[in-house]
Amino acid sequence: HPTASPCATVSEHIYPVLARHLQQRYPSHWFPPLFSGCNIENVCYPMGVCAERTAIQKAISEGHREFRAIAISSDLQDDFISPCGACRQVMREFGTNWAVYMTKPDGTYVVRTVLELLPAPFGSLGPQKIQ
Amino acid sequence: HPTASPCATVSEHIYPVLARHLQQRYPSHWFPPLFSGCNIENVCYPMGVCAERTAIQKAISEGHREFRAIAISSDLQDDFISPCGACRQVMREFGTNWAVYMTKPDGTYVVRTVLELLPAPFGSLGPQKIQ
Amino acid sequence: HPTASPCATVSEHIYPVLARHLQQRYPSHWFPPLFSGCNIENVCYPMGVCAERTAIQKAISEGHREFRAIAISSDLQDDFISPCGACRQVMREFGTNWAVYMTKPDGTYVVRTVLELLPAPFGSLGPQKIQ
Amino acid sequence: HPTASPCATVSEHIYPVLARHLQQRYPSHWFPPLFSGCNIENVCYPMGVCAERTAIQKAISEGHREFRAIAISSDLQDDFISPCGACRQVMREFGTNWAVYMTKPDGTYVVRTVLELLPAPFGSLGPQKIQ
Repeated sequence: HPTASPCATVSEHIYPVLARHLQQRYPSHWFPPLFSGCNIENVCYPMGVCAERTAIQKAISEGHREFRAIAISSDLQDDFISPCGACRQVMREFGTNWAVYMTKPDGTYVVRTVLELLPAPFGSLGPQKIQ
Repeated sequence: HPTASPCATVSEHIYPVLARHLQQRYPSHWFPPLFSGCNIENVCYPMGVCAERTAIQKAISEGHREFRAIAISSDLQDDFISPCGACRQVMREFGTNWAVYMTKPDGTYVVRTVLELLPAPFGSLGPQKIQ
Repeated sequence: HPTASPCATVSEHIYPVLARHLQQRYPSHWFPPLFSGCNIENVCYPMGVCAERTAIQKAISEGHREFRAIAISSDLQDDFISPCGACRQVMREFGTNWAVYMTKPDGTYVVRTVLELLPAPFGSLGPQKIQ
Repeated sequence: HPTASPCATVSEHIYPVLARHLQQRYPSHWFPPLFSGCNIENVCYPMGVCAERTAIQKAISEGHREFRAIAISSDLQDDFISPCGACRQVMREFGTNWAVYMTKPDGTYVVRTVLELLPAPFGSLGPQKIQ
């Protein structure tokens, strides 16, 4: 399987910045592909889906099963946007050791692994087991 | 917004058939684009997503908001595969009058509108109101 | 298994009315039990759940597997409130031939079977098959 | 609002043990109420729901908004069962500082706060902010 870098973003402005950042940070042979997502709301709130899962589902449906990084952006000025618990569980399905970039609109970010964001994950095996 | 034709399928075999069928049936200026989806399971079952929603979310995240048709396939020999209720609600967010093709592996199908599959929909307005 | 009558409602005002209506309409040996639900929202919209599923999940977790009726209410003055597609799929898991009361705050209602609200359901068997 | 202690369990055997443990550990004026849940599956996998959310939704629908502890059990002999990411997000809606007991069938357990299981949560405020 090829590797992929889903790039979930609800901010059109920051997407090129995120994409450029990921391309600078990771070896060129990882790119392309890069997948973007967005929140998709529904008149019935629970039927919506987050940008992160949209990006991951796009990549999966195109044949990718391994990911290097995901970058998340929002319009919130004062917070690094972080993924919801459901998105963390979906990320975890495809590995625990890949990078989650949580950004602000000014382009600053913090980065954590999937396992750091979902410690003692449901479905865990081996070294991730709760001791 | 452009129109789009998401094509949800879990069967690699039937996808070209579905795509060809849709292209023959609809005016050429509707195509491209065509989006395919697949079921994406999770070790935590409720965190999975169906092929139909995957296809629609891909199309939405690429800027589409109007759909003409969705075609669904499976490996079930004896049943026309139909969408689950959640996928019907997500379809309905983007209109009630577009076509849902429910197919068998032999290429036969039945077709219904979204409204026929989700009568008296939640969030309904105007003529779809329950009388 | 006992039978149960989940009573999903977001309106505290109408709940006693619905409960009384169901008790008058159905044989007394069906009652109790009666379960009520409510919408439970989340800061991450897709993590919420509807009143109908809340009521059904309560009943299931108390050991019930068969239902006679569900009644849904809301504060909408001009519409009979109907269940979303996801709730219809969850209702259908426990039968297609039970009654869904869709009400207005004035106590008027329309009633449909689960199958009428989810025709050609996913997972269908036998006579519900799409012909 | 009263406090509550949802007790999600898929194992009928361990439920009385968990309930007794919680009752011994917490002041008696916290009890009752105690709510139990179970996994509720669906022929359409993503339409299912986990035991933890079922227990919490029951408590919410009965008027509770504050929780002290949740205990999770399963039949897995060798693992402390942990909640999925979606359940962590739903737990977090009602506070980050309450206790999650993750148990084995032999009655041993580890305990974490909601915040420990969902660090840098989506929707975070104040001291939980990502620094």
